[in-house]
Amino acid sequence: MTDTNKNTKQPRITLVGAGPGDADLITVKAIKALKTADVVLYDALVNEEILDYAPEAATKVYVGKRSGEHSFSQEAINNLMVDYALNYGHVVRLKGGDPFVFGRGYEELIIAAEHNIPASVVPGISSSIAVAELQNIPVTHRGLSESFWVVTGTTANGKISNDLIEASRSNATVVVLMGIHKLAEITEIFKLQDKNNLPVAVIQSGSTENEKIAIATVDTIVNSVEENKISSPAIIVLGEVVSLHPKFKLIKEVYDVVAQG
Amino acid sequence: MTDTNKNTKQPRITLVGAGPGDADLITVKAIKALKTADVVLYDALVNEEILDYAPEAATKVYVGKRSGEHSFSQEAINNLMVDYALNYGHVVRLKGGDPFVFGRGYEELIIAAEHNIPASVVPGISSSIAVAELQNIPVTHRGLSESFWVVTGTTANGKISNDLIEASRSNATVVVLMGIHKLAEITEIFKLQDKNNLPVAVIQSGSTENEKIAIATVDTIVNSVEENKISSPAIIVLGEVVSLHPKFKLIKEVYDVVAQG
Repeated sequence: MTDTNKNTKQPRITLVGAGPGDADLITVKAIKALKTADVVLYDALVNEEILDYAPEAATKVYVGKRSGEHSFSQEAINNLMVDYALNYGHVVRLKGGDPFVFGRGYEELIIAAEHNIPASVVPGISSSIAVAELQNIPVTHRGLSESFWVVTGTTANGKISNDLIEASRSNATVVVLMGIHKLAEITEIFKLQDKNNLPVAVIQSGSTENEKIAIATVDTIVNSVEENKISSPAIIVLGEVVSLHPKFKLIKEVYDVVAQG
Repeated sequence: MTDTNKNTKQPRITLVGAGPGDADLITVKAIKALKTADVVLYDALVNEEILDYAPEAATKVYVGKRSGEHSFSQEAINNLMVDYALNYGHVVRLKGGDPFVFGRGYEELIIAAEHNIPASVVPGISSSIAVAELQNIPVTHRGLSESFWVVTGTTANGKISNDLIEASRSNATVVVLMGIHKLAEITEIFKLQDKNNLPVAVIQSGSTENEKIAIATVDTIVNSVEENKISSPAIIVLGEVVSLHPKFKLIKEVYDVVAQG
């Protein structure tokens, strides 16, 4: 990091969605933003291959959180973002998935506005739709689902969102992000609605070479996730659309045989 | 269209999401699929600039529906898709937004499977998240919304989805696609929940140069849409997050002045 660019450029900030993991799920608009970056601040779930679109001379700073490592607070990230923009010019804030889907992206826009730094957003492919999609599970499908509801498993206070309780009562396909650590609790909520046999998929590291999937029902998904050694980062999809997955058809056939036996 | 390529290539189908309209909101993965296309079947809401990524020699067929023009039925599209794949090789089925968000993409995967044609999906930037985002309206934001619920305004039977009635009772940000023709009916549903003052945005042709926006409340949005001459294609966003838009702040200031007066 050198000071040669200091104060020669207008400060600006672009929040950019990096997509779910596959480096090719980045948009042309994101690449164009990266090509003019002086600094890139990137998160844990961003595929680092994407950084190669930024100029070699650009400063690349990892601000993510990984277990066992030092993690930056949101406040520290905000300060870095503003300092870099004021001193170096164009800061690309590269975030996993889409910046506005539980990405705290709007909070960063507010910080930029408070410092009179022009800021804009480039949408990214959101895991909430794409991760199931890449397993050929559609969030909507005629006859099975007329809507989908995306909820976070980890709210600011650490508790399950009330919205998830409401979602369990609905006919929507329910997609839970950042919820795998609360999977048992989430299945209990669906059992209270007698949805024990509702199909569920849990997909880890969707769109990457480390992708893993467990397909089961509300009753059996916790076991299936343990057996398949699935861990964070993962999404949970609950809904009849999951029955379209070949693995679920297999479960159903075995079940029907057992039921007939 | 010539027959020179006939039967020389393995048939395959790729469903590709073209994003909300801005040609730069296409992914690298989509471009790679297009570069190897022998045939591209594209919908009405696809930006035609994106077709330039396909080889010049590729056959490009418009299968969308525009008012006043001949439109293809889903069955006709399915038949075309299969015939082209069997006779010409790689068919890219290019769809607006994301193929699995009310795109009937899964139906096309079924058709491909029935004809033993290998098929895959490339997710696209969905209008359901991105169109509001490009107006700096986040579908989620701490303190305002812990979830978002995406519903279609146009179900297979032409009626309002029951899911929309459920959604009106929730705390989720509600995004309605293809619902502008039923805007008055939708606002009535929210009024039944005493949500007359809930902020609403209607955004036409989001991400394109023809973009238009109306910002109001459940009580006033129908008038605002008429005044701003907003028509299809448009998305509707209902939720407290809409209050973050500068135009809503302006409405609120005027309202407060009137209320004090």
